Amino acid sequence: MLCVKQHLPIFDWGQRYSKSELAGDLTAAGIVTIMLIPQSLAYALLAGLPAQVGIYASILPLVAYTLFGTSRALAVGPVAVVSLMTASALAPLGISSITDYIAAAGMLALLSGIMLLGMGLLRLGVVANFLSHPVIAGFITASGLLIAVGQVKHLIGVSSSGHNLPEIIETLWSNVGDINLSTMMIAAFALTSLVWMRQSLASVLQERLDMPIGLAGTIARVGPVFAIVGTVLLSWGLDLPELGVGVVGVVPTGLPPFSVPLTDWSVLSALIGPAALISIIGFVESVSVAQTLAAKRQHRIDPNQELTALGASNLASGLSGGFPVTGGFSRSVVNYDAGAQTPAAGAYTAIGLLFAAVYLTPLLYFLPKATLAATIIVAVLSLVDFSILKTAWRYSKADFAAVATTMLLTLLVGVEAGVAAGVLISLLLFIWKTSRPHVAEVGLVPGSQHFRNIYRHNVLTDPRLVTLRIDESLYFANARRMEDLVLERVHMDRDSLEHVVLMCSAVNDIDLSALESLETINQRLNDLGVLLHLSEVKGPVMDRLKCGHFLTKLTGEIYLSQYDAYSELKGGTAS
Amino acid sequence: MLCVKQHLPIFDWGQRYSKSELAGDLTAAGIVTIMLIPQSLAYALLAGLPAQVGIYASILPLVAYTLFGTSRALAVGPVAVVSLMTASALAPLGISSITDYIAAAGMLALLSGIMLLGMGLLRLGVVANFLSHPVIAGFITASGLLIAVGQVKHLIGVSSSGHNLPEIIETLWSNVGDINLSTMMIAAFALTSLVWMRQSLASVLQERLDMPIGLAGTIARVGPVFAIVGTVLLSWGLDLPELGVGVVGVVPTGLPPFSVPLTDWSVLSALIGPAALISIIGFVESVSVAQTLAAKRQHRIDPNQELTALGASNLASGLSGGFPVTGGFSRSVVNYDAGAQTPAAGAYTAIGLLFAAVYLTPLLYFLPKATLAATIIVAVLSLVDFSILKTAWRYSKADFAAVATTMLLTLLVGVEAGVAAGVLISLLLFIWKTSRPHVAEVGLVPGSQHFRNIYRHNVLTDPRLVTLRIDESLYFANARRMEDLVLERVHMDRDSLEHVVLMCSAVNDIDLSALESLETINQRLNDLGVLLHLSEVKGPVMDRLKCGHFLTKLTGEIYLSQYDAYSELKGGTAS
Repeated sequence: MLCVKQHLPIFDWGQRYSKSELAGDLTAAGIVTIMLIPQSLAYALLAGLPAQVGIYASILPLVAYTLFGTSRALAVGPVAVVSLMTASALAPLGISSITDYIAAAGMLALLSGIMLLGMGLLRLGVVANFLSHPVIAGFITASGLLIAVGQVKHLIGVSSSGHNLPEIIETLWSNVGDINLSTMMIAAFALTSLVWMRQSLASVLQERLDMPIGLAGTIARVGPVFAIVGTVLLSWGLDLPELGVGVVGVVPTGLPPFSVPLTDWSVLSALIGPAALISIIGFVESVSVAQTLAAKRQHRIDPNQELTALGASNLASGLSGGFPVTGGFSRSVVNYDAGAQTPAAGAYTAIGLLFAAVYLTPLLYFLPKATLAATIIVAVLSLVDFSILKTAWRYSKADFAAVATTMLLTLLVGVEAGVAAGVLISLLLFIWKTSRPHVAEVGLVPGSQHFRNIYRHNVLTDPRLVTLRIDESLYFANARRMEDLVLERVHMDRDSLEHVVLMCSAVNDIDLSALESLETINQRLNDLGVLLHLSEVKGPVMDRLKCGHFLTKLTGEIYLSQYDAYSELKGGTAS
Repeated sequence: MLCVKQHLPIFDWGQRYSKSELAGDLTAAGIVTIMLIPQSLAYALLAGLPAQVGIYASILPLVAYTLFGTSRALAVGPVAVVSLMTASALAPLGISSITDYIAAAGMLALLSGIMLLGMGLLRLGVVANFLSHPVIAGFITASGLLIAVGQVKHLIGVSSSGHNLPEIIETLWSNVGDINLSTMMIAAFALTSLVWMRQSLASVLQERLDMPIGLAGTIARVGPVFAIVGTVLLSWGLDLPELGVGVVGVVPTGLPPFSVPLTDWSVLSALIGPAALISIIGFVESVSVAQTLAAKRQHRIDPNQELTALGASNLASGLSGGFPVTGGFSRSVVNYDAGAQTPAAGAYTAIGLLFAAVYLTPLLYFLPKATLAATIIVAVLSLVDFSILKTAWRYSKADFAAVATTMLLTLLVGVEAGVAAGVLISLLLFIWKTSRPHVAEVGLVPGSQHFRNIYRHNVLTDPRLVTLRIDESLYFANARRMEDLVLERVHMDRDSLEHVVLMCSAVNDIDLSALESLETINQRLNDLGVLLHLSEVKGPVMDRLKCGHFLTKLTGEIYLSQYDAYSELKGGTAS
């Protein structure tokens, strides 16, 4: 039973499900449903898919997450960045038939689901740790900007394409003559009302109508629905499609289709790389949202179980006519604020969206695409935050380099290149830093048994004795450099020197290459008549050294503490 | 002038060139010339090139190294592993014309020369450090085995091809019916005599003829020349080519050609990757030989200047009808043992080889290819040393994994895959290790001011205070893990605990991701009413922390030493 509970958390919270939890979940579900309808349509548009696909992708994945997820508030469905990555993955395939394009998007979700489930089985949640916080922040900001610029075409009624800034801007510019004024006016109306609702509606409702702060905030958050209703009415009343305003048009009514999205092998193999990237980015985004919300209520989430839950969600999406999904920030926050108590809220939301898919879609015929584009832009611009560049620059040039590269490549080449470069450059910079370790010559802080850098602190030293504190694990990339540093230092005081102590308090590992370098140092010092000692070698490192021959060759001693070494050697052989 | 001397070391040693140095250099040159003739022919054969190309590649590169090199004993020319890599790089191009094949080999040398010069200009000698000692050892052993097996075809007179063990063995097996008995007999004679000369000739000469040990050793080392003369005479006397024994045949006589080896763009672009690998492997091999020999005479070599010298040598090789070259172990050792005093010895050797190229090559018509193959096998089997596997297994499983992967991939896929995998897996294992840092809970060693692991040492602790020593730099790959570890530990003693001290003696860097994690830890502990302190933060890390907002948010203190922290906090708030 423990095992079942572990993999199906619903058995845990489901057994203790209370009436108050039901009430909270139902309220939250109602609000989230209203908010999700425009959002799902908009993100389908962003991924290059028909509007109804967005709704399909919001139904079964929610149910799957309800069964497997550990977060009490996470809402799974299409999100901006993953939708952009979907468009970016499918574009190079050059699929002309919309049926094939939908199938390829479904296959992408299926592949991503399988990968996430596999990672969950292997408990590989830790891979998310290899995306550094600043790289994620830079990537999200650049993607948000890319998404916003990509929607400009719907605001001005021209066509454009491309998956990076230069492509989008070039195609926009070459079609700039096709600008449609009616589209621009409806876009301006939608944008202005959305921004106003986001920034001012809550406080207006609160101050003028004396509404409680929670209700006012919730109404403001479902604001896009008002913009949609308003522009649908305008579009219908003024017959805007006649004036060349792009509208959503006929949206098929009915339940999501259940089928395995079949694509040919060449498409499948081309999707494997993008599916892996989408899985990791989706997982990182989802887990960070879930962790943020869990911390507020002192809950905990299990990253490995989250992999399983997201995998099941994407599998469900792929099999029910959807596209890649993940836990989204805005929908989860609304769910949380509206009082969702358990994952069941997600299942109720799914029922609401199923209703929408069957009965509501005919009403969307007149919905201007400009309204959806405005919804997307207002949503993603809240993700854009260039302050990470300033923070990183002030704190560390290496972090800055990683963020700046991620942003630049995302904007100029595309999302996949951006993420890949971000991960790679972070790891390379880390390796580069560890390959050039800081080595400090240390002396005794007077009146203590503590040793610090002779250039930063006023410390005691002895001319017969040099102590070098090596500030890095010793491994192949820095082993030769350490040889050079030690031997250079020894040559500076060749006449008076009798002992070299390597203080190993910061040496967390010594690999075989470094062991050979230590043997070389020991040998060279021996040729010069200088003894080599080690101090403060940690337990795990000492265990390892005992497996080699180095300890039998070492000319000096190994001291438990640097103070022991100093006390014994300063009064040593010459006295 | 200092600048010229730095880039043209010849101006340094050339000005002080003495008669005794001249004598030493001339003797060494004579011996090395005799040894290099068979070796050059053999390595050309190994690279799939006509015999004379091996001699061309041994002339001008030696002169170029004389001008730019810093090692007094290094001899540059074709070597086994680089010749194998050359064959491996050219095979996939499917070149059928021998002229085009020679041009492609020359282009490979040219590209490698340009890359090495570029790395020298950028002072990138450090890249060699990213090849760990065990990976190099594994690679050399596997390459040696691959080379030896690849030569079996010449020993038994059948044709075979391939660049990994399965391919070579399969083609050998399918042609096994073509075995030529005369070839096998001449091969057996060559092999036996070469092995005997290598193992016993020196001691026989010394004991029976009372020869000085140095002379006896030198004669033994030029042993391959006797095998060549012997088998050429046999081959001519018995007219072995008539019996189907493969011989070298007509070798063009004359000076090396001077021209830019022109190949088309597709060939050029296919060679860029292999040229980079050849450059790095060649550089690592050459520098390690040079360093070994320099250490014996207390000389020093400059790795960055060595890049320039090897670059110039490869450029010279490419422009004079040769193929990629580097500093070879056996030729350099012979040069050193024979008494070479300065790089001028290389120039004299070049003159000797020039003479050979013009006058000696017609004598090689009857030279059996089996003899050259036997020379190669005897030379490379001395490189094969599987003991690295045992050493690595005993010392560290991570090192073992890197060596074993390198060896397996080199043997089963090929040299390029082997080296690439070796570097990658070493780096990934390092990152993996640092992403799972060791964290020790420490206490005071009685009677000292030193703190050690509570599970390894008998130490004093205080229930109000937990001190965790984090044994790794904090960065994105381990930041979240550290959050979990600290919070888990705190939850174990939630009631009594008042202070958490993170002892940072082994934390050599804190990146922006880890800084955010520290802020999270600080916040969570604050919610639990526990104060967070740091101790023994190093100078460079402290400098960095001052650039962020963390220090203003930290609930506790930063202590110079862990002992200060312990002394103050154990008698702290509760007392």
